[in-house]
Amino acid sequence: ENIMIEGDACPINENVVWQTLCQEARADANSEPALASYLFSTILAHRSLEDALAFVLANKLRSNVLLDSQLLELFSVQYRRDHSLVKKAQADMQAVMDRDPACDKYLQILLFFKGFQAIQAHRVAAALWRQDRKPLALLLQSRISEIFHVDIHPGATIGEGVMLDHATGVVIGETAVIENNVSILHGVTLGGTGTKDGDRHPKIGSGVVIGAGVTILGNIKVGANSKIGAGSVVLQEIPENSTAVGIPARLVKVGTKAEPSLSM
Amino acid sequence: ENIMIEGDACPINENVVWQTLCQEARADANSEPALASYLFSTILAHRSLEDALAFVLANKLRSNVLLDSQLLELFSVQYRRDHSLVKKAQADMQAVMDRDPACDKYLQILLFFKGFQAIQAHRVAAALWRQDRKPLALLLQSRISEIFHVDIHPGATIGEGVMLDHATGVVIGETAVIENNVSILHGVTLGGTGTKDGDRHPKIGSGVVIGAGVTILGNIKVGANSKIGAGSVVLQEIPENSTAVGIPARLVKVGTKAEPSLSM
Amino acid sequence: ENIMIEGDACPINENVVWQTLCQEARADANSEPALASYLFSTILAHRSLEDALAFVLANKLRSNVLLDSQLLELFSVQYRRDHSLVKKAQADMQAVMDRDPACDKYLQILLFFKGFQAIQAHRVAAALWRQDRKPLALLLQSRISEIFHVDIHPGATIGEGVMLDHATGVVIGETAVIENNVSILHGVTLGGTGTKDGDRHPKIGSGVVIGAGVTILGNIKVGANSKIGAGSVVLQEIPENSTAVGIPARLVKVGTKAEPSLSM
Repeated sequence: ENIMIEGDACPINENVVWQTLCQEARADANSEPALASYLFSTILAHRSLEDALAFVLANKLRSNVLLDSQLLELFSVQYRRDHSLVKKAQADMQAVMDRDPACDKYLQILLFFKGFQAIQAHRVAAALWRQDRKPLALLLQSRISEIFHVDIHPGATIGEGVMLDHATGVVIGETAVIENNVSILHGVTLGGTGTKDGDRHPKIGSGVVIGAGVTILGNIKVGANSKIGAGSVVLQEIPENSTAVGIPARLVKVGTKAEPSLSM
Repeated sequence: ENIMIEGDACPINENVVWQTLCQEARADANSEPALASYLFSTILAHRSLEDALAFVLANKLRSNVLLDSQLLELFSVQYRRDHSLVKKAQADMQAVMDRDPACDKYLQILLFFKGFQAIQAHRVAAALWRQDRKPLALLLQSRISEIFHVDIHPGATIGEGVMLDHATGVVIGETAVIENNVSILHGVTLGGTGTKDGDRHPKIGSGVVIGAGVTILGNIKVGANSKIGAGSVVLQEIPENSTAVGIPARLVKVGTKAEPSLSM
Repeated sequence: ENIMIEGDACPINENVVWQTLCQEARADANSEPALASYLFSTILAHRSLEDALAFVLANKLRSNVLLDSQLLELFSVQYRRDHSLVKKAQADMQAVMDRDPACDKYLQILLFFKGFQAIQAHRVAAALWRQDRKPLALLLQSRISEIFHVDIHPGATIGEGVMLDHATGVVIGETAVIENNVSILHGVTLGGTGTKDGDRHPKIGSGVVIGAGVTILGNIKVGANSKIGAGSVVLQEIPENSTAVGIPARLVKVGTKAEPSLSM
């Protein structure tokens, strides 16, 4: 039985990731017996990445008035309904592996990175939001904020290959759009302005890097491959391939691919 | 049996809010059976806003060395002792409903908004502090910081109609005063300067809006209806009806009612 | 039986601290019977600071897939193996007592200060990291980030007498070094630049005070006794006894001992 997509256009092969995860879990369980039961229940007891992911998320987001069995069923059904959610999770794992010098195992990302877990739980909340199951989507948003300290409105759109590094304090508003391969550090806000309804949150182009503590406000575009330096407050459009820093952010490089050095 | 205040000067009628909450809970339980037991235990099993509020807060703040039954009793006794705590909770709910374009149900505020929950738990901690039950007040402060990621000293004074939006990372010091109808975004600090004792924290006038990530330090006044732009560091008094931005914050508008656009 | 170090060079006598903690716990249990069982299980049931500390940390960091009995054993073994971990915990408690005007009991620090608890749990994670038990060290890092909202890589080096005040959102990278007697407010990042491996995080000299929301990026030195004002972004070396503020941070005082007023 193989429910994975073979020969897919995506350069990431899901079977390989899942098999690697299982190898990593077995190796860690052998080297650290204190972790064996933990790694069995989170990884080795499962048959696929989506099974393990559903277990990990349900186990984190449960409370004493919200059973993990209910959450497990909820995540599992959504993963069966739309397998692209699992593909996106893999692309997000690969993004962390490629970009975070402190990470060298998929296992760390799946089990330990609250930014990764927050995005995956958000993807399910967003699916429920689109299915007009808004109360459940808002409950998930709330639990994600409580447990992972990341507040993402279920109406927000997040591409694949997205990394929320460290993640604490991130806020992403209802009409924000984040394209593929974006990296966002902790403490970043993609917020609205004032109390107006409608399309009021930032649009982040592909390949953008947003430094720690950045606030971007309003329905403005940050162009592809641009970088926003730590602590900046962005109130106006940023062109592609540019670097902006400061309060309010001013362009320090325009139209040239920026150094990653401001991004942490 | 009706313990609500009828014909009160407050424009918010508590019965109406409680009845609306129950209607919202019934509607959501019908449309989403997976939420029925959750909504029953948090809302529909209770007889009044204060009963539901005490249950929700106790359930969030419990730990395995602090029983929810103890916390439930604690909150219930304080609400019976001072019903103005419940009136203020209602005013805070109304503030969120009026100001947050992403919110259209009281139910969301009571169950899902950690900023709202943090303020209500703080009001009880502050009551205990004034009753000279300081160890219990400090325990509540600590649990609020752990669970809601908002650190409010129980000595701080918070008016009614106050909104902590998103809430993660807010810090409010012992001698801070927040007047009515203030909106505070996430990551805001109302801090002291140095290690001096005494009255050392900011005083925030009514109607003020403080943007995401703002730090205000020292015993300084932010005048009524002023706005502080996201990411600012305020070290000096801000007059009424003004807008201040930057590090250190400089006035960009004085004496004219500011645009809400900087406030998220 | 007395496993404490008598006549030690350290000015803090551990027996005195532990005895004071027990006195404080007994006094609070008497004045607030609702706290008696809580104070018994966290303090009064134990025989030493390290026993109480191991219990408190295990109890906080447990989850339903990670037993507190396992964690308790883990912390206890590390404290027996290296008693300097306990001495450093005492020095950190004394630092909070000396510097935080809102704190007047050791009990508050041990039980209620998530910044203190995060550092102590990190010290054990760092010991495991040095013992090449990396999977367990990374699991602890992850739980510290989830429960205390402080993300400290287990490779980071932290001296003694260090205070993380309020603590929410602090991020400390793998190759960061923090010398003795440093005070760090909430929302502070000691981060890397880009995706390079190797020694890439800040080195913080003794006696430094870092204000709320500061971001320091790269392998740069902040000289002893310097102060970084709230909200600053530091991208270049800061000499000793200086004050730096702004985005990017500029020196406003050099070579003179700075005022503590910017530090909160």
